[in-house]
Amino acid sequence: MILSPGATIGILGSGQLGRMLAIAALKVGLRTHIYAPEAEAPAYDAAAARTIAPFDDEAALEAFARSVDVATYEFENVPTATVEFLSARVPVRPGARALALTQDRLVEKTFLRDAGLRTAPFVAVDDAGALARAVAELGRPSILKTRRFGYDGKGQSLIREGSNVSAVYRALGGAPMILEGFVAFEREVSVVAARSLEGEIVAYDLAENEHERHILARTRAPARVAPETALEARRIATTVLEALDYVGVLAVELFVTREWNGREGLVVNEIAPRVHNSGHWTLDGAQTSQFEQHIRAISGWPLGAATRRGRAEMHNLIGEDAEDWRDILAQPDLCLHLYGKLEVRPDRKMGHVTRIFPEAPGEG
Amino acid sequence: MILSPGATIGILGSGQLGRMLAIAALKVGLRTHIYAPEAEAPAYDAAAARTIAPFDDEAALEAFARSVDVATYEFENVPTATVEFLSARVPVRPGARALALTQDRLVEKTFLRDAGLRTAPFVAVDDAGALARAVAELGRPSILKTRRFGYDGKGQSLIREGSNVSAVYRALGGAPMILEGFVAFEREVSVVAARSLEGEIVAYDLAENEHERHILARTRAPARVAPETALEARRIATTVLEALDYVGVLAVELFVTREWNGREGLVVNEIAPRVHNSGHWTLDGAQTSQFEQHIRAISGWPLGAATRRGRAEMHNLIGEDAEDWRDILAQPDLCLHLYGKLEVRPDRKMGHVTRIFPEAPGEG
Repeated sequence: MILSPGATIGILGSGQLGRMLAIAALKVGLRTHIYAPEAEAPAYDAAAARTIAPFDDEAALEAFARSVDVATYEFENVPTATVEFLSARVPVRPGARALALTQDRLVEKTFLRDAGLRTAPFVAVDDAGALARAVAELGRPSILKTRRFGYDGKGQSLIREGSNVSAVYRALGGAPMILEGFVAFEREVSVVAARSLEGEIVAYDLAENEHERHILARTRAPARVAPETALEARRIATTVLEALDYVGVLAVELFVTREWNGREGLVVNEIAPRVHNSGHWTLDGAQTSQFEQHIRAISGWPLGAATRRGRAEMHNLIGEDAEDWRDILAQPDLCLHLYGKLEVRPDRKMGHVTRIFPEAPGEG
Repeated sequence: MILSPGATIGILGSGQLGRMLAIAALKVGLRTHIYAPEAEAPAYDAAAARTIAPFDDEAALEAFARSVDVATYEFENVPTATVEFLSARVPVRPGARALALTQDRLVEKTFLRDAGLRTAPFVAVDDAGALARAVAELGRPSILKTRRFGYDGKGQSLIREGSNVSAVYRALGGAPMILEGFVAFEREVSVVAARSLEGEIVAYDLAENEHERHILARTRAPARVAPETALEARRIATTVLEALDYVGVLAVELFVTREWNGREGLVVNEIAPRVHNSGHWTLDGAQTSQFEQHIRAISGWPLGAATRRGRAEMHNLIGEDAEDWRDILAQPDLCLHLYGKLEVRPDRKMGHVTRIFPEAPGEG
């Protein structure tokens, strides 16, 4: 299924990623239809049509499928059953497999290991006894995480020297979990890459991320790593995209380590089967934004160039940060993006700001 | 009236300029409400709200005014009465004066002359006898134009040696007209500039335009003119913006002439009180697009930087040109913009394509 201009893309989810995908679709003459349970949300204003319904409303999903030419999702906590229901009626890109995989940390880590990629050591934890054995195996510090529904640091807890292991287990609610060995990393980086329906792969330059309270605070591109590290990150993204027969944009979060021989190493942390906060700089700093790239890929179109327009820095506006919008606008070299969220809440991503530093052609 | 994020901008008109303005508003967290008579049109898909009603429907205009925080127009053939009606209820930026001025070529040219700017010689023509006298005064070739509702070469006719003056007069329908002396120009250029509510002015680099069959075909920025010519064009835009106490983006179309002393001269052709086709390159080629610049200005916000990101070339996709979308997408260094028009018609602007050629910092 290759879309023509004027076709409609269905998007499951109504957050800022859906909003920016809808804007990218408008740019190239496509329409969007947002499907989400929220009454008010950032993506609706940018879409030609919206369906406000739960993700298990089969009648609403049926009508949604009939109204769109292809569907996608903008966050990975959409139920797999919803995507499977739609997939029987309309192409969903990327498909249910990538979604199911990234919804379960154990399945995801196992997939990565089976694909020959390096991850933190990990052990499945199904009860308190298993946790005690896992901590004995992986040592401290290690990180206990719920297998499902974690994001921005939610559903995880650090087990240090002296931590009461049973208390940590109970605090996370006794759900199926995974214990991950601690990776002593120098930097956090991410590679955002796209794969087209024909299998073409285009990756953006490796980006470097700083988190604060488990939420992405800042991204800079390119990352300050050795050229071979950037190349290796690209190879990792290619491996993941091909192993999943993926169509669309995907992000791979990685840790940069310092190896015994003094060289940099890369450890895969996690995969996001969607456009990613660490790729927001591409809106102002790359030839084709990650949002347009995703729209192109799922439309069955050729991918655009990922060329950087300069060195990019992106700052998230979290909670009250967004109240500085006047000051940001007054700095003419800043690019302000706001997501249309009316209510400021702590830890809520309200927008982001990008600054692009020109480079000479061929530099960087 | 200074808008806050979440506020709503009303836009009169539903074409591609309205669509791109609405997209720019989304980027900075603003909503738009489109008001236009057309049942289907490019801007609707990008707006949070739409009113489909004639421009003289006072009840609809009243409700529209109540629903928006500021209003603007995206084309200059909106009736002045509509803008005056709205202006009594909500700020309209730019106001009725700029609109009225540019709706009548005689009033516009008189304003330009009174502001000390150079235009083609012109004479008002109210009947066939006046036309004969005007042709005798300005010579041949000269151009007869209706005073109102002309665009893309509509409503104008060239009077050459041997032209039957009465027949040309009758062909244009006997409306009030203006005869303009012919300007032998080397290039057509345009300056797109913005003025904020506080009076700050930011101009984009002078652009050079090529028309085919009176429709803009290509723009390149910067224009290939002497530095003092580019500076003079900026001064002209500043004069116009200040004389009109203008708020928003405006374009001034100019002819570049070769003077007796070998230097370049500038003759003002016309003013467009809105974002302009010759500024579309700014979407990919400037720090702040002309669309965001207009949104900032009418919101009472500071203007963004107009810095170019490289040398820009923009090609309009007119009529069947848009059927090449697949070939355009396959060239990764082209930026494709489509306006969501489903029906291809000859001379219809369906989209545009931009290519940005990197320059070293400080170059160009």
